[in-house]
Order: sequence, then C-alpha cells, then structure tokens
Amino acid sequence: MTGRCAKSLAEGGHAWDKLKEECGVFGIYGAGLDVARLTYYGLYALQHRGQESAGIAVADGRRIQLQKGMGLASEAIDLEGLSSLQGHIAIGHVRYSTTGSSHLVNAQPLVFRCSRGMIGLAHNGNLTNVNTLRSQLFSNGSVFQSSTDSEVIVNLIARYSQGSLIDSIMKTMIDIKGAYSLVIITEKSLIGVRDPHGFRPLCLGRRGDAYVLASESCALDTVGAELVRDVEPGEIIIIDENGLTSRKAFQSGNRAHCIFEYVYIARPDSRIDGFNVNKVRREMGRQLAREYRVDADIVIPVPDSGKTAAWGFALESGIPYEEGLMKNRYIGRTFIQPSQNNRDLGVKLKLNPVRDVLAGKRVVVVDDSIVRGTTSGKIVKLIRDSGAKEVHFLLSSPPIKKSCFYGIDTSNEEELIAAKKNVEEIRQYIGADGLHYLSLEGLLGVFGENQAVFCTACFNGDYPVDISDTNGSGKYVLE
Amino acid sequence: MTGRCAKSLAEGGHAWDKLKEECGVFGIYGAGLDVARLTYYGLYALQHRGQESAGIAVADGRRIQLQKGMGLASEAIDLEGLSSLQGHIAIGHVRYSTTGSSHLVNAQPLVFRCSRGMIGLAHNGNLTNVNTLRSQLFSNGSVFQSSTDSEVIVNLIARYSQGSLIDSIMKTMIDIKGAYSLVIITEKSLIGVRDPHGFRPLCLGRRGDAYVLASESCALDTVGAELVRDVEPGEIIIIDENGLTSRKAFQSGNRAHCIFEYVYIARPDSRIDGFNVNKVRREMGRQLAREYRVDADIVIPVPDSGKTAAWGFALESGIPYEEGLMKNRYIGRTFIQPSQNNRDLGVKLKLNPVRDVLAGKRVVVVDDSIVRGTTSGKIVKLIRDSGAKEVHFLLSSPPIKKSCFYGIDTSNEEELIAAKKNVEEIRQYIGADGLHYLSLEGLLGVFGENQAVFCTACFNGDYPVDISDTNGSGKYVLE
Amino acid sequence: MTGRCAKSLAEGGHAWDKLKEECGVFGIYGAGLDVARLTYYGLYALQHRGQESAGIAVADGRRIQLQKGMGLASEAIDLEGLSSLQGHIAIGHVRYSTTGSSHLVNAQPLVFRCSRGMIGLAHNGNLTNVNTLRSQLFSNGSVFQSSTDSEVIVNLIARYSQGSLIDSIMKTMIDIKGAYSLVIITEKSLIGVRDPHGFRPLCLGRRGDAYVLASESCALDTVGAELVRDVEPGEIIIIDENGLTSRKAFQSGNRAHCIFEYVYIARPDSRIDGFNVNKVRREMGRQLAREYRVDADIVIPVPDSGKTAAWGFALESGIPYEEGLMKNRYIGRTFIQPSQNNRDLGVKLKLNPVRDVLAGKRVVVVDDSIVRGTTSGKIVKLIRDSGAKEVHFLLSSPPIKKSCFYGIDTSNEEELIAAKKNVEEIRQYIGADGLHYLSLEGLLGVFGENQAVFCTACFNGDYPVDISDTNGSGKYVLE
Amino acid sequence: MTGRCAKSLAEGGHAWDKLKEECGVFGIYGAGLDVARLTYYGLYALQHRGQESAGIAVADGRRIQLQKGMGLASEAIDLEGLSSLQGHIAIGHVRYSTTGSSHLVNAQPLVFRCSRGMIGLAHNGNLTNVNTLRSQLFSNGSVFQSSTDSEVIVNLIARYSQGSLIDSIMKTMIDIKGAYSLVIITEKSLIGVRDPHGFRPLCLGRRGDAYVLASESCALDTVGAELVRDVEPGEIIIIDENGLTSRKAFQSGNRAHCIFEYVYIARPDSRIDGFNVNKVRREMGRQLAREYRVDADIVIPVPDSGKTAAWGFALESGIPYEEGLMKNRYIGRTFIQPSQNNRDLGVKLKLNPVRDVLAGKRVVVVDDSIVRGTTSGKIVKLIRDSGAKEVHFLLSSPPIKKSCFYGIDTSNEEELIAAKKNVEEIRQYIGADGLHYLSLEGLLGVFGENQAVFCTACFNGDYPVDISDTNGSGKYVLE
Repeated sequence: MTGRCAKSLAEGGHAWDKLKEECGVFGIYGAGLDVARLTYYGLYALQHRGQESAGIAVADGRRIQLQKGMGLASEAIDLEGLSSLQGHIAIGHVRYSTTGSSHLVNAQPLVFRCSRGMIGLAHNGNLTNVNTLRSQLFSNGSVFQSSTDSEVIVNLIARYSQGSLIDSIMKTMIDIKGAYSLVIITEKSLIGVRDPHGFRPLCLGRRGDAYVLASESCALDTVGAELVRDVEPGEIIIIDENGLTSRKAFQSGNRAHCIFEYVYIARPDSRIDGFNVNKVRREMGRQLAREYRVDADIVIPVPDSGKTAAWGFALESGIPYEEGLMKNRYIGRTFIQPSQNNRDLGVKLKLNPVRDVLAGKRVVVVDDSIVRGTTSGKIVKLIRDSGAKEVHFLLSSPPIKKSCFYGIDTSNEEELIAAKKNVEEIRQYIGADGLHYLSLEGLLGVFGENQAVFCTACFNGDYPVDISDTNGSGKYVLE
Repeated sequence: MTGRCAKSLAEGGHAWDKLKEECGVFGIYGAGLDVARLTYYGLYALQHRGQESAGIAVADGRRIQLQKGMGLASEAIDLEGLSSLQGHIAIGHVRYSTTGSSHLVNAQPLVFRCSRGMIGLAHNGNLTNVNTLRSQLFSNGSVFQSSTDSEVIVNLIARYSQGSLIDSIMKTMIDIKGAYSLVIITEKSLIGVRDPHGFRPLCLGRRGDAYVLASESCALDTVGAELVRDVEPGEIIIIDENGLTSRKAFQSGNRAHCIFEYVYIARPDSRIDGFNVNKVRREMGRQLAREYRVDADIVIPVPDSGKTAAWGFALESGIPYEEGLMKNRYIGRTFIQPSQNNRDLGVKLKLNPVRDVLAGKRVVVVDDSIVRGTTSGKIVKLIRDSGAKEVHFLLSSPPIKKSCFYGIDTSNEEELIAAKKNVEEIRQYIGADGLHYLSLEGLLGVFGENQAVFCTACFNGDYPVDISDTNGSGKYVLE
Repeated sequence: MTGRCAKSLAEGGHAWDKLKEECGVFGIYGAGLDVARLTYYGLYALQHRGQESAGIAVADGRRIQLQKGMGLASEAIDLEGLSSLQGHIAIGHVRYSTTGSSHLVNAQPLVFRCSRGMIGLAHNGNLTNVNTLRSQLFSNGSVFQSSTDSEVIVNLIARYSQGSLIDSIMKTMIDIKGAYSLVIITEKSLIGVRDPHGFRPLCLGRRGDAYVLASESCALDTVGAELVRDVEPGEIIIIDENGLTSRKAFQSGNRAHCIFEYVYIARPDSRIDGFNVNKVRREMGRQLAREYRVDADIVIPVPDSGKTAAWGFALESGIPYEEGLMKNRYIGRTFIQPSQNNRDLGVKLKLNPVRDVLAGKRVVVVDDSIVRGTTSGKIVKLIRDSGAKEVHFLLSSPPIKKSCFYGIDTSNEEELIAAKKNVEEIRQYIGADGLHYLSLEGLLGVFGENQAVFCTACFNGDYPVDISDTNGSGKYVLE
Repeated sequence: MTGRCAKSLAEGGHAWDKLKEECGVFGIYGAGLDVARLTYYGLYALQHRGQESAGIAVADGRRIQLQKGMGLASEAIDLEGLSSLQGHIAIGHVRYSTTGSSHLVNAQPLVFRCSRGMIGLAHNGNLTNVNTLRSQLFSNGSVFQSSTDSEVIVNLIARYSQGSLIDSIMKTMIDIKGAYSLVIITEKSLIGVRDPHGFRPLCLGRRGDAYVLASESCALDTVGAELVRDVEPGEIIIIDENGLTSRKAFQSGNRAHCIFEYVYIARPDSRIDGFNVNKVRREMGRQLAREYRVDADIVIPVPDSGKTAAWGFALESGIPYEEGLMKNRYIGRTFIQPSQNNRDLGVKLKLNPVRDVLAGKRVVVVDDSIVRGTTSGKIVKLIRDSGAKEVHFLLSSPPIKKSCFYGIDTSNEEELIAAKKNVEEIRQYIGADGLHYLSLEGLLGVFGENQAVFCTACFNGDYPVDISDTNGSGKYVLE
C-alpha cells in the first residue's frame, strides 16, 4: 500500500516529467481516539498527494493546537510532540503548492482566531478567482500574512461573521470559484466541504462512532475506517456532538470530477466517486489495446504509473506482460535536483532497463501521460539501447494540451509538448516507432454511462469554471 | 554607554524586584546607508527597554523584508543575514511583553500585506481599550494570528482602507486609547506616531540627509545622529522621498509623559521631552537630601539604578559617597530563574557588600523605587550583616501604589507593597532604621515649572486615560 | 373577476373580523409593451391582497422611475402620469402592512441606488429575524429611512456588493428567515425570488415573448398571460435580454405553503402550487358535510368568503343551497371606521338577511374561519332574528389558535377566540345551535397525497421557521 | 432687518444675474423654549441663503420629528403643525441646491436611523470629493435615496459606528474634503461642525441657558440670542445636558473663509469671523473711490446689493449719493421665469429708473459683481435711456473668473464673462463709459492685517482644497 507512496516521493521533484500531485486533506472526529496519531497515519496514506509540507491541528472542545513543518509528514511532524496534542477532533494536510511559494507560513492547516473563536482549515484544490477576491478583501481592510488562496477562504469565512458558521461557509462558497475540497476544524466540530463541481475528491468514512473525512478512501483504510460515501459536490458535512448533518449550498448538477485523478493522481486502491481506481486503470489499458493494434512481443509499463494500464493492455491484446524497466526505490527526494543536468542523470538513476527482457523484442511501453516529453524520449532510448527492435509508446490518456486551473500543476501551456506538436511530431521527438494516446472517447467510455461528470479541460480546453481571472497559469503568483 | 545596557540585561528577569522595562523602537530613512545594520546598533542602544525578542524590517521601495527572533538583539538577529536585507528604510523593535505572551508570533515588527501594499509596525506602549477594539474587529470579520495589541493597530489601519495612509492612521488614533509610540515602515516611507498624551518617549534625529526615530536619544548617539526634537504628543511624522512632513491628529494639550522614564527606565545619557535624564536624576537625589536630613557616615547606591540619585544626595547633604555594594556583571539573563528559591539566592549572587566600606558605619542607601519589597529587605540585611550600625533606605520616587496601564509592567496592584502597607510598615518589613520616599511634590519640583505634563498614576492613581476597559492589570491576557 | 376584489375592498377594514390579507406583487418584462399600464392592471387583479398603498416602478435599461401612493391602486397611482413611465420592465406592489406603519415612506416598491445602479424591490411576506438583521446592519453602518423589513432586504443585497447580483441575492437568502416572495427590478432585468419554504405564492406567466411574475395566477389572466409554472421554493428567476434563467439558492424540500391562501386569501380563480383554489374550496365544503351530518332545510354562505365551501357542502349533503344574506356592495372602505361602535353597525350595514329565505328554516351557515368571534355572533343573531328555527355555524377551516409570523395579520394570540375557548364555549359565545370547524385532517385530505407541503402553524403551532427572534406578534413594531 | 431678505427673495431666481446663495443652517438647544418656532424664525432670518426648500427637525430626548417642504420657509413649513413638534432641541435648514436637484427627497434636514438611534443633519457647503466617497460607500454596500452630498456625510457618520458619535464625526471629517458647516441633531444633543478651512460661516450664540448655532449672526438677533463667538475652523461643538464642549478635529491654520460672503452673500447686519459685514462693505466702497477717481455728478447703487458700497464710495469721493433705480418689491419668486425672454422683461419690471435723478447727470453706478454680464448691460441702458450723460459702472469686487466648488453656484466657467473678456471688452459689452472692478489687493486691504485667511479662488483660481475629483462644475450632478 505504501509502495505507491514511495513511488510518488521519488517522482515528486520537478526533474521527473510528471503532473504534480496537489494536496491531501484528512479529518477525524472521534471521542476517545488518539486523533492526532490517526491523522498522522492518514497523512502518511495521502503522502503521494503532496510532499512539500505537512501539518496537524487538534481541537479538544476549547481550543485548537497546531503542529506543522516543511517536508514529508514524517519530517514535518514530531511524532512524540504529537502526543501533547490532546483532543477528539483533528485535521491534517499534506501540501504540494499550487498557490503560494514553499515557506512555512504557507503550510497548512491555517489556524486563526475570529469572532467565532479558533478555526483551522486545510484545502485541496485551486481557486480561479483568488485575485479578485483578494483585492476585494484588501479594499475591505483585510490583512494577509501568507500568499495562499486558502488564506483568502479563511478571511471570507471570518468576514461573514453573522449567522451560523455554516451560513458563513455557504456565503463563502458563493464567492469562491474553482476547485476546493476543505476540511475545517473548530473548537467543537469537524466540517467537510466540496466545491459544487466536485473537482477534487473527498470521502466520508466511519470507524465505530467516529467519522473520518479524507481525500482518498485509501486513508480511511489506513485508520481502520469504512467508506460510507463520497461527499457530494456542493455539500457541507458537519460533525459535532450531535452527530453528522449535511447541508447543500448548491443544487446538484454540473459535476466535473477531475478525470486525471483516475489516470494518475489517486492511489489505485482508492475508490473515488463510485469508481475503483485500479479497475478503471485496467480498463484504460484494455481500451488502448482495442484502439492500437500492433504486432509486438511484449508489453511493459513505465513503473509505477503505467503498471495497471499495461496489465490491462496485455489482457486485452494477448501480448505477454513483462517488467522491462526496474525502478530504484532508494532514490530519495533530496537527491533529485531540479537542474537540467540532473534531469538527464535522473532517468538513468531511477529506471534500469532489463536487457534480458528487452533485447531483440518488439516492445509496447505503457505510461499514463506525457507532459513536456523530456523523460519519454530518454525512456525510449534506454529501451532501444537495451536491444529492443521496435518501441511503441502508448499512453493511457489523451494528449495534455491545456493547463489545469483546478489544483494540478500542469506547467504553463507553452511547456506542454502536445500544445505545440501533433502526435506524429511527438513520435519523432521521442524517437518511438509508434505512439498512441488513448482517445478521449475511449477514456470516457471506461466509465460507462456516466461520461458527462468529468472535467477533461486539460485534454480539450472545456473549462467548467471560468478562468479569465487567472493569469494564464495554473499556479498563482501572489507574491 | 553600554554599561547601563549590561545592567538592564542582568536585571531583566522576574527575579529582581524592579518595574519591567517595556519596549524600544527605532526607525531610519537614509539613502545610501546600511540601514539594517544601523538599526541593529540602534536596538543595541535600546536593549535596556526589552530583552524578550527583537526584530528588524527593511524596505527598498518595492517590498519589505523581515528578520526577527527571541532574546536579545544579538541573539534574535543574524548579523550576517542582515546584509541580505537591502534597502534605504528600516525599523526595529526590542520587546518586553506587556500584552501577549512570549512567542515568536508576537515578536515585532509585525509585517503584513494590505490594500496599500506591505506595511510593518513596531509599538512601544499599551492600549487600554484593546478588548473593545478587538471584539469590534472580530465582529467585522478580522482574523488574528497573534495576541498583541499591536496586531489590533495593524488591523485598524488596514480597515481604514480609503483615503491616504495618513488618514488611516489619524482615524486609528481616534480609536485607540492609551500609550503608543509607533514606528511604521511602508515600501517607500518611514512614519513615526506618538499618542496624544505622549506617554512613551519618541524622538527625531538627523544624520546628514538621513532621518532617525528612536525611543531614546541615546540610540541617536549610537548611530551618529543628532537629536532634532521630540515627536510631539498627537503628532505623525512622515519621512519619504519628499523629505519630512508633520501632521497633528489631535490638538496639543494634556501631556502625560511617564515620569518613571526619568526615575528608572530611560538611560541616563538620554534627553527626553526637553530634560536630560542624568541631570534630573541627580536633582532627585538632592531633593531627597533636603527632605530627609540624617546624621550618617556614608551614602551608597543600590547599583546601578540608584547611582545618580545617590550622588546627588551626597552633593546636597555633604555625606561622603561610597560604593558599598558591588555588582557581579557576569550574571547573564539565562542564569536567573523566576522561582522563589532562586530569588533569595539571586540577591547574593548579584550584589556583593564591601565590608571595608560598610563596617561600623551609619549607611544611607539610595535606590530608585520599591515594587514588591522582596529585594529591599535582603539588601538591608546584606548591609547590616556587613557590620553597618544603621541602615537608612531612601527612594528617589514616591511609593508605587497603583498599576500602570500605559506600558510598564508594575505587577498587579495586590503585589505592590505600598498598596497595602504604609511607610512605617514597609520600614519594619524591610528592617531598615529609616525609610524615606521622595515626596511627589519633591519629585515634580525637580522639573521646574513644567509639572503638569507628567503621568503620575502609579503614585497617586490619577489615570489620564480611562482604564475601565482593562481587566484590572497592566498586562493584558488576550489568550 | 373584479367581484372578488370589490368584496375584499369592503372587508378590508379592521371592523370586519377577518384575517388580513398581506401584500401582492407583480412584475413584467416585455419589450414593446406598455408595462406600466399592464402592471397597473395586474395590481388591480391583486387588490384583494392589500389596500393600504400601491406603487409601480418602471425601468428602461438605463434608469428606474417610480410612482407610489397611499390607498387602492386607483387612488395611489395616477393613470395619466403612468404614461410618462416608459420602459420595458416593471414591478408593482399592493400593500397591507404586516411590518411598518402606514406611511408613504413604507409604501413599495422601494427604489434605491447602490453599487450596482438603481434597484427596486417589492415584497410579500414577513421576515422572522428582522430585529437581529437590522441590528447587525446598524452595527455595520447602515442607515434606515423606513420601518419595513423590506428595507432590511434592500440593505443586505447592497451589502453583498461583490460578485453578481444573483450572488448577492443568494447570500441574502442565507441571512433572511421567514416568508418572502420578491419581485426585483434593476435597470435591465426582472428577478423573482421565493423563500425556501414557499410560504407565499409566486407564479410565472408568459405572454408572447414577455414574462410575467405575480402573486396569483388571476393577475396573469388579467394581463393576457398564461401560467407557465409556480416559482419553486428557494428559486431565483432572472429575466433579462438573454431570456429566462433559474438558480436555486437552496435545494428543494421542506415546503410549507400557507394553507390559508386556499381557505380565504387567494382569489378563487387562481391556481397556486398546482391546486385550483375554487376546486379546493368546494372540496372543503364537501368534507365539512361528511364531518358534520345535520338535519337542516337550507345551507347559506356568509358572503363572499363562505360561498364556494357552502356550495360544496350543499352538493355533498343534498341540503338545498340558498343565499340568505345579501351583501351591500356599495360600502366603501372609507365608510368603515375601526371603532367598536361602528363594528356593531358595520355588520348590519354590510349584510342584509333575506327573511323569505330564512324564516322558519333550520339553517346551516358556512364561513371560512373565525378570528376574534365578534362578527360571527352578530351574523347568528341576524339570521335568528329573521325567523330561522336553528342556526348551525360551520367553518371550512380548523380553529385558529396561533399567530402567523409569515405574512398574515392574525392579531395577537390573546385576541384569537380559539386560543382561549374550546368549540363548545365558542358555540355558546356566538349563540349558535351547532358549531363545527373542519378538522385539520379533513382540510389536508382535500389536497390528496401532498399533505406534507403546507404550513398549518395557525391551527397547530407547528412553525416551520423559528420565531424566537420575533416579539410575540406577527406584526413587527420597529418604530 | 427683513428688508434684505425680501430683496433676496426677489432676486432668487435664475433670471437675475447674481451668484446664487447657498444654504443656511440653524440649531438651538434650550429646555423650556419653543425650539421649533424659534428655529422657524431663525430660518426666516436666513431665508436669503436659500429659497428652494426648508425644513425643521425637533428632538425631545427620545426621538426626532421632521417637517420639510419645497419653497420658502413660510411655504414649506406649516406653522400650526409646528406646534406638534415638541422638544428642547431643533435644527433647521434653508436650501438652494448646489448638489442634487430640486426634489423633496433632497430637502434638508436629512433624518435617519442608525446604530446610535435617530440623527438629523443640515449642511451648508459643498464637498469636493463626493464622487470618490460615494463610490467607496457604494462598494461597501451603502444605499442612497437622494442625490445630495449631505447623504454622503450621513452615511459616513453611520459607517463609523464604533466609538463615540464625536469620534465618528472626527473620522468623517478626515474623509470629507471641501466646504461644510453642519448642524446635527441627535435624540439628546445638538452638534455644530465647521470644516478645517472655515469656508462657510457658522457662529455660536447664547440666550440665557440656551445655545444657538447659526450660519449668520443676524439669525441670533432674530431669536434674541447674543453672539458668543464663531465656531472655529475644524471645531466640533457639542451641546447636551452637560452643557457645551468643544473638540478640535484638526489643528488650526489654513483658514480660507469665503470672501464673497462679505461682498454679497451675507446679510449686512451679520458679523462673521470677527468682521461686521456692513462696515466691511462700506470700506469696499471707499477703496473703490480711492482706486477709481472720476468726475461725476451722482453715485447710485444697484439696489439692494450695491447700496452699502455705493454709500462708502460717496463718503470717500464726496460725490453725492442718490437712489436712481427704484426696486419693485412686489415681484415674487413665482413671477420670475428662467427663460431668456423673461430675462429681458425681468430687469424692467424689477428696476425702475428715476428720471428726475438721472437726467443730464454723469452717473457712477455701484454693484457688487458681474457674473454673466447680461443684467449689467441692461441696467446701463436703462440709466442712459433716462437721460444720463455718462454711466460709470463700478464693482465692489474683482472680476469673477473661476467657478466656486465650495458652496456657491457661480455657473460654469464658460458662462463667466470675466473668464473670456478683459475689462475693456466687458466695458464695451455692457456699454458703459467707464468700468472698474475693485482690485483684489484693495478688497483684501479692507480687512486690515488678516488678509491671508480668505478664499479668493473665484477671483484668482487659488483653490485651497483640491478640486480634481469634481467634474469641472461647482454644481454636482449625481443623478
């Protein structure tokens, strides 16, 4: 289960040509439980969603205490010090920054005092109208100390100081546009919020009398909770001494779940919005085999992201599955440097071709996607240098042509290879004998009849939420 | 010049029965100067005003950078790292907390972003209506991250987001009650503000084209600037590329300068609101001699705070001045622990009686004041144990009977010995043969005809600013 | 069609023991139409819902013009001056005050300028938390010129000055509790809003390309529009140059339509929330006949409110229907004075018994309800004095025991006869031989299976929206 | 005393080429007095300052009642109804609109409810930054119902809802720029405010225990009060049950009293800012005689505005004073129509030349000023047609070249004849044999050594308060 985490850690740096994971959130309300430690384990299970900083806030009915730091959860949080965070409610956050730079002041949860007492907040996603909101808050006298869009949410909630906290959250949801899955802690309650499109996942679990909220169901498993259901788009879940209640800030409809969670981001053992990630990924591989018929000797994955799809391809095509690239699991995050030189080195250090498997073979390689294209070319060369006769490069998703503004760092559009080159040009660029991207129809077909519920903006530019207030990049620069 | 600073450091802990110094502020605007380093030196000269934390903020016309930490300026600020703080404007702060606990989040300067860009603020003094203001700000949606009254000022300035910054400061001055000497830094200007009563000192200096603001003129000397004048009560001084301008938020009148600055707080080499501290203190000693005529062999000070007054006493009375108590200058702050056991030990470790001077003598001891009375008794006993025949304890100020709410930590009223005992009872308590406090008339007489301009609330309870919004203690507990 | 209006006019004064009608709203968006005049006709059709004041606001895309005055629409509005109100959008209002006294300043529509330009608003209903909201607005600096709860709505909408107008309305809907059907006019659009419980009616009609909003469908008929549908509880309808769009501020559920609209308030030719008022009323009469079996010679209505139910009673029971009380249609509003003396006189002047019909008969009299009981006793006496042998008094609704806080003036609870007396006591009080109120089950049964969608608070005290913020009366006194 | 008032009434219309008077304010605090009636008399004495609308608000310690209407005080206010306005505090206002059009909604006092209870306000002057302030208030959610700058002041005061009312007024004074003399009534107090430049007059009087505030001291005389002093620029006067207190929102300095008050606006029997208007005007005439030496037979005034200066001219020059133009005092306001045709007629109807006085004479005519020049030419022709041999036209003020933005309606600059023509050109235009304007030095010399305290912007364009936020005209168009 933690294998995938290890993979993500190794791939977390800019050196590796992958979409960046975003953030993971976790929350628990459970009298009599060591909620701080359970949250720590929850973050560990969500570590693949962010490795820049981590934090835990714990409430005991009267106040909120906080621990946060830079790095992995295990680096950021002092497990021994955690035992001093007594209480029955906790939230946690792992962060890869999409907004705000990598400083401790930007680490989450954010904890603050307002007219309602202390409140803490952890956020996964990205607001698209943060510039407008921030300048409105400025002109009304707000003061900011960080550069995150999450501090904007905090200030909006505090601004709506009248009525109930849920009223404030509902009004805030009217203001904020874009992607957000939130867990909020007050002195006495745990609250989960999901944006009306449901861009980012958020699920609800139960362990005995305790309730758990998490970005992915794999974190529920880790703390011994069972998946109850996904939080619905536009829903607010409140858990307090009266149990669980639900409010809908917006009527249902217009779902736009991030399809890339299924392609790459989420852990395969998670179940998101009704779909088992592992099963969905295998179907992508099967569909790839239907779309791209080729005479080949073996099919191999780019580990680890291509594994499940490669297996599906093998099953459907009948071509034998092999593991032709071995991954060095001992490459830590600190080793990988974001300079260009190291990038070249990085691929070789990270992936080792198995010459016995590859030599003389017509090889089908399956990966999930190509971002800038730099790594793919090196992988093709590695395989060819190992004696392969043919190398067919297959992707379990369509070409990424557009930036994401809803919480995934896709780089600027000008860096995306598919924004400038067509498939044939990319094939030549990476030096493969064949190149095929899964068609968008094929990808959507995997989900059966529920095809209208996904955001596919990175493939076709159909942005479900207006992005005109952004500055053209999925990563905001507020500083 | 730094001798006094060393003394203050040694006396800074709670173990020593002294009024607590408060805070010191410094600001400089000077193109071409190493303003960060000059501010560091300025804080060094003001170190006696606060040893809990220190910080420096530097502006270069476009942004503000900050360094701050716990402890003395030399501990809190990395002198090497300081060289990276480039700019032509700087402010600095040394802090002894009167409001808010001793955490880094409460250290100053506070730097924040608001509609006007970045602003930093350093504050000496204490607001008396902070609870009211804070709850008003809360109900209007403000968010707080520290427990200082200074963050209240910051939020008020940001709230008044329309009109000029000076307009905002003027409106804020209408709201805030109590004592405040502020230095404010923006991306392009340095601003000094003094409350309409002028409780705490703030002076203006000049070095060539550069302007300097400081709590005491001794800090001007340190950075090679000359004293121009004191900032007037209710005045706002703005220094920017257009030079210096002045605004009066309130008409003059009702000055209430803290008289205790002259008795104990300020460095003797400072000149405050037109009076030379050293000269004033010597006159207090002379007046003490006029009020308390005694046959004695020698007059000795309690070092260092009683020195100048003892010297004045000797001059006026004709009784020879001796140094009968030697101070161990090597006792650091860290050594002194605030527990009761250590307090007893503390006096002996800190003061060494000179038996040759004291034995067989009728001794007049001069100190500046008595707070709780614990240390004074030990000093009398030390002297008597050294062979003195008589010990007359003289104070260069009247009995402290009331708490200060304007920036000095006098402890709660119930801890003040003079709030509960009369002079004869105190004499018995400390075991002296004679005890005399300088009369309030005598103290005021030292200043000639300008006697109506001082706050003497700690002596007689005449509070110039309403204190009903405080919770009965000069030290606010917002947490 | 105007017969009913005439009736209402005659019964509008306090002298007549009836629940007071509340307000009526109307709106139209139609290029090329004389919208001011059509609104005038619409108000005429809704006149039975309010006779204290009337007003019309017209927008032409650039500004809003207003005419309003005291009295009936025909008195308040200058039909000739109306022709100067050019535009393609209009709203109108007839008012019986539930909040605010009877002054011109309280007449609606309210027209004001805010950051979005000019806006006008007309409101039917009553907010239950207006005191709280008003004091919150006060503390945030709002200024009020009237005493209506509608001005509170106006200020809230203006407060939420950021985002779209619809966003502002949605946030306002989170704040305001209670009953509200609103029509709003901006310089360029017409908006209809109905509270999440749907207390008061509001329907949507169409005439060619023009859209019409009205409290009751009878007003659609008057202006030649067809009923499209009812506005849903929690729905916002926006009509502008782009046509009609709908937003749901709240998810559906928890409907609480005022059942008294069907019993008495609405015009019988209206269709409200799917039910034909005339048909429903006749069924009430039928059900009454099933519940109260009596040997009688004739059944007569109290005109006009009892007519339809009396007819239903006659159909079901087989007892012949007669008109035994004739109404003097020439009694104007101005004639009826609210003093006690005139009340006695009032009944005789207004109702004339037909001796030929009544003499020697066992009479069943059907009315819709009893409020204070003063009039009912006089009617029984009138009939008995005309020679009737028996008088059975039947009501097509259950006893009114509780005040309404959602827009109907039921008087204070202490004035309601059924709050203090049981049915037998009331029978004695009014001097009837028999008295029967329709049972609540019987009333609800008329609506078939949709029995859970009504507010029946005036009968059983089940208030769907918290009334603790009211001051115990359905009529707010803000002055 | 009322003669001057009558004159003003007759000249109040647009037909007569005069600067428009602005507004007059009055306030009284006096237990046991009929304050409503005294205010009515006060307005009567100030009628020359505005004839478009009038109003009176009266407070009795618990609430404020209001009467206002269009026209003269005698038309707008029902003297009998006034007796129902019981209380011990009152304010009144006569208005000639400089901002906002002539509708009842714009008449003053404005009375409103805010967090502090009821407040009424009457304003003389003109704000120069009303557009900026209004849009700021809009963006913070304020709602406006009139088009006056006074409603802006009202909303600002209400916005500053925390601290004392005086604090709110002080903050408001930081925001508002331009000219304002205010009288404010609360349920329990009377407040007078004068802008920091003192553009418009405001004086304080006393009658027994009662205090009076008025635009001019002539109104004090009318109600039997004695002039105590002028309200100082930047001063706030508060009168309540504790008597009178004063606050200074701004330090003194930069006075800019409107010099035109002395030239034309004020009544001659008033004493303003230390100068007797009558005496000052006579000195203007004397100075005119020193500057313009001429052989002439008689000196006559243009009645009534030139009378006092003509008399001074006669005294200094030795030329005999005569009344050569008789004024028809029975021309009412309603008779004068603002069309061009009637303007021609207007002069003849209004002024009748006395042929016996004028025939064969060399005539010096003295008036106070020329605005557009239309009337002056007609007067010259009238005199010449009556047989005068020479006509010398003299003005007791310099040429008006610039618009006023501080409360006087000078017309747009393009309408001012002196903005386009030099003196010789104007002489030809009006057909006089000689034309002389009093020099600015000469005018200022009349005031002795206090020459730096006046606003002379209409003569020389030295605007003491920035006018860049205005739209180029002294009369704002907010609608």
